[in-house]
Amino acid sequence: VERIRLALADRFGPPPPGEIWIGDDAAVVGCPGTKLVLSVDAAVAGVHADLGRVSVADLGWKAVAAAVSDIGAMGARPLHALVTLCVPPGTDLELLNAGIADAALEWACPVVGGDLTAAGQIMVSVAVTGTLDDGPWPAVTRSGASPGDQLMLTGPLGASAAGLRLLGHGGSGLDPAEDSLVRAHRRPRARVAEGRAARAGGATAMIDVSDGLAIDLHRLALASGVGVDLHDVPVVPGATELEALGGGEDYELVVAATDGPRLCQRFEQAGLRRPIVIGACTDDPDQRDLRGRRMPAVGWRHNLG
Amino acid sequence: VERIRLALADRFGPPPPGEIWIGDDAAVVGCPGTKLVLSVDAAVAGVHADLGRVSVADLGWKAVAAAVSDIGAMGARPLHALVTLCVPPGTDLELLNAGIADAALEWACPVVGGDLTAAGQIMVSVAVTGTLDDGPWPAVTRSGASPGDQLMLTGPLGASAAGLRLLGHGGSGLDPAEDSLVRAHRRPRARVAEGRAARAGGATAMIDVSDGLAIDLHRLALASGVGVDLHDVPVVPGATELEALGGGEDYELVVAATDGPRLCQRFEQAGLRRPIVIGACTDDPDQRDLRGRRMPAVGWRHNLG
Repeated sequence: VERIRLALADRFGPPPPGEIWIGDDAAVVGCPGTKLVLSVDAAVAGVHADLGRVSVADLGWKAVAAAVSDIGAMGARPLHALVTLCVPPGTDLELLNAGIADAALEWACPVVGGDLTAAGQIMVSVAVTGTLDDGPWPAVTRSGASPGDQLMLTGPLGASAAGLRLLGHGGSGLDPAEDSLVRAHRRPRARVAEGRAARAGGATAMIDVSDGLAIDLHRLALASGVGVDLHDVPVVPGATELEALGGGEDYELVVAATDGPRLCQRFEQAGLRRPIVIGACTDDPDQRDLRGRRMPAVGWRHNLG
Repeated sequence: VERIRLALADRFGPPPPGEIWIGDDAAVVGCPGTKLVLSVDAAVAGVHADLGRVSVADLGWKAVAAAVSDIGAMGARPLHALVTLCVPPGTDLELLNAGIADAALEWACPVVGGDLTAAGQIMVSVAVTGTLDDGPWPAVTRSGASPGDQLMLTGPLGASAAGLRLLGHGGSGLDPAEDSLVRAHRRPRARVAEGRAARAGGATAMIDVSDGLAIDLHRLALASGVGVDLHDVPVVPGATELEALGGGEDYELVVAATDGPRLCQRFEQAGLRRPIVIGACTDDPDQRDLRGRRMPAVGWRHNLG
């Protein structure tokens, strides 16, 4: 706790009056609104990140981005983060904390508490609180989509998987387009502004693409009791369609909406890229089609034996 | 996430109307009051628990108890927990989750979200939210003690360390008193009611004894800028004074108060055991005395090379 304090506390400036951040038994912060949104996500070296290809700073960034993305996928805004670091002796804590702090600052989500302990491999767990205090709209769950709803994506997919592939080939001598794919893998972006615009714009269901479009869309469909019929999967230049379908960690949002144009208008008002319509929800709960054929069942699955 | 859902969600009953617990991208819960208290704690197999001596259920219990104890040490009441499980293939998840759920139910702190991932050793991280909504008193920090304040303990120490010692000798053929020490090690208790009574009773500073009285009291003294002069360390029958001073994981609270009798009265009103006066804060910030001699510098320290 003492070393986390030294390493992390100074990166976030003093807390607002009346708040207590890192350094006591627990943090005390303000709670805007009457609802709290809570998520947690972990990144483990060798499982979620190959430290031969990315740095420990990237691992730290990723853990924060993944937890913040879950807050964004409810249409909420992150407030504060709690970080657990389990690290082997010799870990470059300064670098790990730098990646964590960079991501936390990126989404205005200061780390207000933490725990630091020894372990045999690096594990970073990030819990994030969030709020829905920007409007009367409820959180957007996975389960609210109806047959006929349009399905949209906040951006094209596959960048993270393509970046990982390029890193596997050595990662040197890349052109600017390839560099941007590598960067998408190292420093994925949580779509917080997009999630809030979707919630304000009448989204009926939403999920972030953390494990791959095919599996995450399946989760949304299963929770909503609808089928999906896609006419398109937008693929980032330099990535393959399989990487877009199964790669995961792109953190774009899949959004269902009964009134697609109204939702798109909200994105334009917020100065955000217009969502890409990829298909529609159907009334056959077993349907998982892409261009009239069954979608391949690809995507990240946890190997727990 | 799916398996955590299956294993943990059913243990906590359905959420109250308008809330979302395990199963979506994030949880949505009510936030009573305007302040939120946040803590996080991790338990790692082989570091915080020897699975040759305690079960994975005990490891799960301990991670929850430690995080709840940090909430209690601010004088707050726990609300909700988020759990990260990093586990090797073959881990008895059912047993691990049972220990987590038992502790969460014990302190009325349902697990509303989680993440499950593969790792080389078992790591459980628990983040807990808490509230101060039972009265106008602010959170009790480590830093508010003044010279002359009385120092009190919510109970005698050393049970957990003595229990671990007994387990090391085989743990069989123990008498009831020894069994209770072993139980104190396996299922430590967070002093939530005691922490709230201390806050309501005018505590000026508080910390939980997680790493050992000597080091945790040092932390309180350092944060408050006071010295400590102890005339006594209450030791649980069957434990040694060194186990009481350095053993840790007893989770009793050390409380400083300007008006000790008033604080004790509040404990009596709440039906709680009367705190034990162990000494006083002094104006020499370097003083760390027990019965007129320097306290031994013992206690848990994280080995991070």
